[in-house]
Amino acid sequence: MDAPSNVSHQPLLTEEAVPRGFRFGAVRAGIKASGNLDFACAAAEKPATAAAVFTSNRVVAAPVIVARRHLQDSEQRLSLLLANAGNANCATGNAGIEAAQRVCQEAGAVFGCNSHAILPASTGIIGVPLPVEKLIGALPALRAALGSSAAHLEQMAQAIMTTDTKPKAAAASFDVAGRTVRLAGITKGAGMIFPRLVSAPHATMLAFLFTDAEIAPLHAANLLEGAVETTFNRISIDGDTSTNDTVVLWASGASGVAISPAQSDAAAGFRRALEQVCLSLAKQIVADGEGIEHMVELEVGGAGSDDDALRIARAIAHSPLVKTAWAGCDPNWGRILSAVGSSGVAIDPSQVSIFYGDLEICNRGGVSPRLDKEAAHRYLQQREIRVRINLGGGSGACRFWTTDLTAEYVRINSAYST
Amino acid sequence: MDAPSNVSHQPLLTEEAVPRGFRFGAVRAGIKASGNLDFACAAAEKPATAAAVFTSNRVVAAPVIVARRHLQDSEQRLSLLLANAGNANCATGNAGIEAAQRVCQEAGAVFGCNSHAILPASTGIIGVPLPVEKLIGALPALRAALGSSAAHLEQMAQAIMTTDTKPKAAAASFDVAGRTVRLAGITKGAGMIFPRLVSAPHATMLAFLFTDAEIAPLHAANLLEGAVETTFNRISIDGDTSTNDTVVLWASGASGVAISPAQSDAAAGFRRALEQVCLSLAKQIVADGEGIEHMVELEVGGAGSDDDALRIARAIAHSPLVKTAWAGCDPNWGRILSAVGSSGVAIDPSQVSIFYGDLEICNRGGVSPRLDKEAAHRYLQQREIRVRINLGGGSGACRFWTTDLTAEYVRINSAYST
Repeated sequence: MDAPSNVSHQPLLTEEAVPRGFRFGAVRAGIKASGNLDFACAAAEKPATAAAVFTSNRVVAAPVIVARRHLQDSEQRLSLLLANAGNANCATGNAGIEAAQRVCQEAGAVFGCNSHAILPASTGIIGVPLPVEKLIGALPALRAALGSSAAHLEQMAQAIMTTDTKPKAAAASFDVAGRTVRLAGITKGAGMIFPRLVSAPHATMLAFLFTDAEIAPLHAANLLEGAVETTFNRISIDGDTSTNDTVVLWASGASGVAISPAQSDAAAGFRRALEQVCLSLAKQIVADGEGIEHMVELEVGGAGSDDDALRIARAIAHSPLVKTAWAGCDPNWGRILSAVGSSGVAIDPSQVSIFYGDLEICNRGGVSPRLDKEAAHRYLQQREIRVRINLGGGSGACRFWTTDLTAEYVRINSAYST
Repeated sequence: MDAPSNVSHQPLLTEEAVPRGFRFGAVRAGIKASGNLDFACAAAEKPATAAAVFTSNRVVAAPVIVARRHLQDSEQRLSLLLANAGNANCATGNAGIEAAQRVCQEAGAVFGCNSHAILPASTGIIGVPLPVEKLIGALPALRAALGSSAAHLEQMAQAIMTTDTKPKAAAASFDVAGRTVRLAGITKGAGMIFPRLVSAPHATMLAFLFTDAEIAPLHAANLLEGAVETTFNRISIDGDTSTNDTVVLWASGASGVAISPAQSDAAAGFRRALEQVCLSLAKQIVADGEGIEHMVELEVGGAGSDDDALRIARAIAHSPLVKTAWAGCDPNWGRILSAVGSSGVAIDPSQVSIFYGDLEICNRGGVSPRLDKEAAHRYLQQREIRVRINLGGGSGACRFWTTDLTAEYVRINSAYST
């Protein structure tokens, strides 16, 4: 196999980081108007365990419906993952489902696998018929493009981009009894990003996680759900939950290391690696948010429960007034306090304190006696900022990652595109 | 009393529209940096029945706390309403409550009334101490400015403006047995507008409704809650619920007409007039939303319940992707369908249809066969647009008014203001 062309200039992954047992590929099927890579796949050397979570949006794209069925029909043993960008195949009715199925059937013939062992994923515009013939026509070239290098995986990361400005990948590895377990993931997403993934499927964030560990289907599902909850489900750019969000964990077993609940050390090592890769990918999505000038880490503590803390973090992350204040480097803590108050969580405003980095801005519901507006303004001029809210109550806490809201976000999303 | 200066050029109200039994006034207390009118009052000729609803934000501004107490202490019989703009007196702790109380005490002495019969209201920046001395110093001038003309009421509407570009007023009247009952209201608000008013008080939308009907306190409260629910509680500009929102209905009785549940014709006439005035004021707020280019009337029908319809309307109204598409005159119905799906309401996507005006865009979950993109684009170039969503289910329905999201909104709210 030739090395792929059109990879990003700085390698995202080392060769050593790529999980064994998979090959990756990407081609131009002519869906993106830009003519860039838009159709990608990953193939397992032999059918391998997969687990997936999907968006909780009630409007579910056709590929998500088909992916659910195929996971069930194959008993979570997949041969191929197919992903296109530029068309979400959503709100396309039965014709959309038939289109996704037809691409899987043709891919089964071209790649020599059972079509039910194929997981399709799509991202792009909603409500436009999937260009089936273009995809089917590109299948032989996609098969020819397969390879197991880091560059091949990076091409896959490029092909699934939509409004992303850069491809996103992360990797981790750990050793078990002298053998190395590798985990690597790619993701895409820059807008319509507020994943609320549930095991009963649906998202337009896509994330594909590959490992050469061997994991049983039920355990893989448990590990994925646990990792997603504190990573992908803790980010929001605009509060819009997509119809196509999909996260897949795929385990080839090629490392010869089995991860099971019984082997607690290896399982703990895998869990850490998985969380690390998921968190890195989730934060890369936030950092590439549409038009953003600030990436914000929210730390909410002192809540009655972790769930209360999360509801408050979401209320802050979705307040246009808070987000525009951040865009202006304005330490307008009153807007944060107001968002906390309207979150629906029972809080005592006179116990709420707010910090920018280590700078106390609001102390027990009022302006902090230590407030230094100029220092706060300077702090907010950094691209990455940390906002800490102490509710002064219980031990509930969470971390959440979000962005500011800029005029550029509005420009990107108000361009006449239909 | 001299006619006030500085009224808007086109009269908002006719002399005949002004409810009898009140006087109104406004002065410059030096709170607004612009030097515009910023301190206003309304005085009843004699203590008169008042009902009020306040924001449901848990962070409640000091004037709201004091207003609640005074409504209770006076048994809903008020002599004076005091409102300032430029400072919300919120997140100001006990000092803020004492500041509001002190202004009421001094006003009681200047206006010759019980301080507990005074309802204070504030709007403006959060977390900055109320400039008490400026307000107290302006009280004699405020008293001297009182008058009962339409121009006086309009000055009050001007004084409570913050980022509003124009004062807002509405009036209605009806006859009962040859006597005229007048109802007039003023309001302000252009951002931080998603009122969720509850009878257990708290809002930075302010609305003051005056009538010369005679109404018992409990009945006034019931009438106000009913009218607010389908008007002020059905608008959103940015989804941010303020800490200071307040709506007051004040009944002087000067018309000599009593409105009571027993007299069903008069009560129905009053209810209609109240809803008409509240709806006009609520829509004027939306029409003056910060930076907006589109005012959007949402009609949701075919829902399982009215509450489901309302949750879906709010999800659409708060989707940045939907709002930016409107800003771009882009009939991107996929974003609307996605927002419907992520509202949390159990819907069947294959039954959802979407219309812009009378143009069907989405039919039963997919693109409408009747879609004419150019016609839809032209329709969306109007300033006022109507979006109708038919969920194809039950008989639940609602109307809701919202706006687009423009780069100008971001500019207004990201200006460094702290």
